[in-house]
Amino acid sequence: MSTLLINNVLLNGSRQNVLIENNRFKRITSEPILTADEVIDGGRFAMVPPFYNGHCHAAMVLLRGFADDLPLQAWLNDSIWPMEAKLTPEDIYAGSRLAVLEMIKSGTVFFEDMYWDEQETARAVEEMGIRAAIGVSLMDRQSAAEKDRLFDRLRNYKPTDRVSYTVAPHAIYTVGTDLLLRCKKAADENGQFLNIHLAETMTEDADCRKTHNGMSPVEYMDSIGLLSPKTILAHVVHVDQHDQEILARTGAICVHNPASNMKLSSGVFKMKELQKNGCRIALGTDGASSNNNLDMLEEMKLAALLAKCYADPEAGSATDVFNMATQWGAEAFGLDAGAIEEGKLADALLLDLNNEKLVPNYHLVSNLVYSADASCIDTVICNGKVVMRGRVVPGEEDIIEQARETCRSLIARK
Amino acid sequence: MSTLLINNVLLNGSRQNVLIENNRFKRITSEPILTADEVIDGGRFAMVPPFYNGHCHAAMVLLRGFADDLPLQAWLNDSIWPMEAKLTPEDIYAGSRLAVLEMIKSGTVFFEDMYWDEQETARAVEEMGIRAAIGVSLMDRQSAAEKDRLFDRLRNYKPTDRVSYTVAPHAIYTVGTDLLLRCKKAADENGQFLNIHLAETMTEDADCRKTHNGMSPVEYMDSIGLLSPKTILAHVVHVDQHDQEILARTGAICVHNPASNMKLSSGVFKMKELQKNGCRIALGTDGASSNNNLDMLEEMKLAALLAKCYADPEAGSATDVFNMATQWGAEAFGLDAGAIEEGKLADALLLDLNNEKLVPNYHLVSNLVYSADASCIDTVICNGKVVMRGRVVPGEEDIIEQARETCRSLIARK
Repeated sequence: MSTLLINNVLLNGSRQNVLIENNRFKRITSEPILTADEVIDGGRFAMVPPFYNGHCHAAMVLLRGFADDLPLQAWLNDSIWPMEAKLTPEDIYAGSRLAVLEMIKSGTVFFEDMYWDEQETARAVEEMGIRAAIGVSLMDRQSAAEKDRLFDRLRNYKPTDRVSYTVAPHAIYTVGTDLLLRCKKAADENGQFLNIHLAETMTEDADCRKTHNGMSPVEYMDSIGLLSPKTILAHVVHVDQHDQEILARTGAICVHNPASNMKLSSGVFKMKELQKNGCRIALGTDGASSNNNLDMLEEMKLAALLAKCYADPEAGSATDVFNMATQWGAEAFGLDAGAIEEGKLADALLLDLNNEKLVPNYHLVSNLVYSADASCIDTVICNGKVVMRGRVVPGEEDIIEQARETCRSLIARK
Repeated sequence: MSTLLINNVLLNGSRQNVLIENNRFKRITSEPILTADEVIDGGRFAMVPPFYNGHCHAAMVLLRGFADDLPLQAWLNDSIWPMEAKLTPEDIYAGSRLAVLEMIKSGTVFFEDMYWDEQETARAVEEMGIRAAIGVSLMDRQSAAEKDRLFDRLRNYKPTDRVSYTVAPHAIYTVGTDLLLRCKKAADENGQFLNIHLAETMTEDADCRKTHNGMSPVEYMDSIGLLSPKTILAHVVHVDQHDQEILARTGAICVHNPASNMKLSSGVFKMKELQKNGCRIALGTDGASSNNNLDMLEEMKLAALLAKCYADPEAGSATDVFNMATQWGAEAFGLDAGAIEEGKLADALLLDLNNEKLVPNYHLVSNLVYSADASCIDTVICNGKVVMRGRVVPGEEDIIEQARETCRSLIARK
């Protein structure tokens, strides 16, 4: 048994003492708690839940800034895909470490991932102390043998304390009905989540209607039984009233990726409408090559501003956006986390109340959503363990150097 | 004479030695420079121009997060104006110090301001070492005697090395034609810039057309001779093709405030169209109560994403947005700054190339616009002097404490 005590920390507006035992919040009280294995003086800090990133391609940080300001097809065909074709498992490991470092430094303790060589991303996550639901990516273009190998891997993966695996068909325009059904069957049999990009662009919508008897992407997915409370949908931009009713009825999770949708001119997530229709929503950064960072603080501000920009100044409230990034995200992935409460998994941030962006402090959540940047976060706790303290993550210089070397080699490689 | 040498710094893709003499760049060379009064080892840094914030209400940081997610009129009438009515000159000084601290920490060395008690904002700026063009705000509701006093002050102000003053009629819906003409005359006689909010909301546009024979805000301003290359227009959201031709012809500067426009649902700045029509553009944060920070890095990302969201992924390129925030902004205010070149005023940032958000470094400007946050900025140089080093600004704890105390007192005050 190990205990961690954060003394005298600002929590929901008053000073509290927070005791963590192993990986859960054991006691939260204004009464003194006298002893623990490790004690942090919370005097200059506020404690809030950390961020749960609902959609990411972590290792794509290796392509950060490699190709910007391009139309989607040119971006993919001429820049991203040729580079991705050169990636080795060691590269994925180096990229995942850089991504996890960036996520910790900006207060994220969980991400859902969809990329290649998922075991390398899992290795980085296990080592660095945060959580992830890591997709095994599937596409029609993979050979039959390769698909069999991937489904075997999925069947054999056992979730650990912090890492689980998901079945990740890429999108309905790269994965046909047969493979989608096989993915769904595997997810059900293995007790895994299924995650997919859906309704991201107008082109996807138009092509889907052409191919599938006029059905929208959401209608099509529903018609083949792919939507459930364990289906994670990334983007979900082009959805009408009927689509939203389906999403609400099935309990599928809609992950908003504001930076990516804006950068690639994909369209605008209908946050206010989706909420009104009772859909489950979460927030994600997408990969760094369409963002170009993995910072959920930025993503919250974008989500709040974008909701208002297209609707009215009362849409996308700071509280709703903060919930999207924290407890709604945690709940979407079945994590007993996302709130600082006795019994919950012990994930938390300590915010530096002396940071200029948090002064004055009339409304901490509003400051976090609209004003804060990563430098406001002093300490990150995940699963009861401190993974960043005083903005230092153990081994970060080595991680940066390895990532830089990987990128140099990637560019030079034929 | 004093000299400052930054050795071996990454500048425009290669390692350079940069010598500053007094307040200007004296020599930039790859040859060794052997001596200077102060030497900074640039090995882990890149040097870029700092930011020039085209529109701000600095002391409004005192109201950061005080009232969010409200419609414009409720926000102004019920929250902002009653609080502003209580502000004393000492409050404005404390708020301006906090604002300048936040700007320095996020790489801004100049701002255009429009608020009350401009002498207090000037005091903070003079003390803390950055630049500003500080507006003396005028509105019809001020008494005749008050207006006379303000115009007297304007006539008597002499610009210093870093601080100048501008004539700042608030907006066309709070300042009638007579006062606007008096402002223009004063600006011309005093050799000062004139700055005003213009074409910010649909309501302003509709009211203007009703009052002024169907003219748009830009047409009206042009019809009374208020537009010139020394006119700074904040927001400029609701402008059609004809308006844009007028703006291009007169050389007036259009300052984009993406966060504020989104947060208050004002509308979307037509960056791509304005550029195509040859209009002069710059970038600003607006005040912290409609943003809620003063961080030009965030503002650049918002400007780039917003241009793409509404147009196409090639609009709002990283380079154009970076120029808006740096040299176009400096040029707009007649500053011989905004670029790292021999002879220019010595304003610069040193970026920490080991910050995870700047790795890899395929394209530094792209990383700055899309990925960086304030923590990437190690050192800020303004007018040849170091105003932040290693992310420390002299006296920051005192500034934070004074601002916090001011806000406590403001809330308690009847």
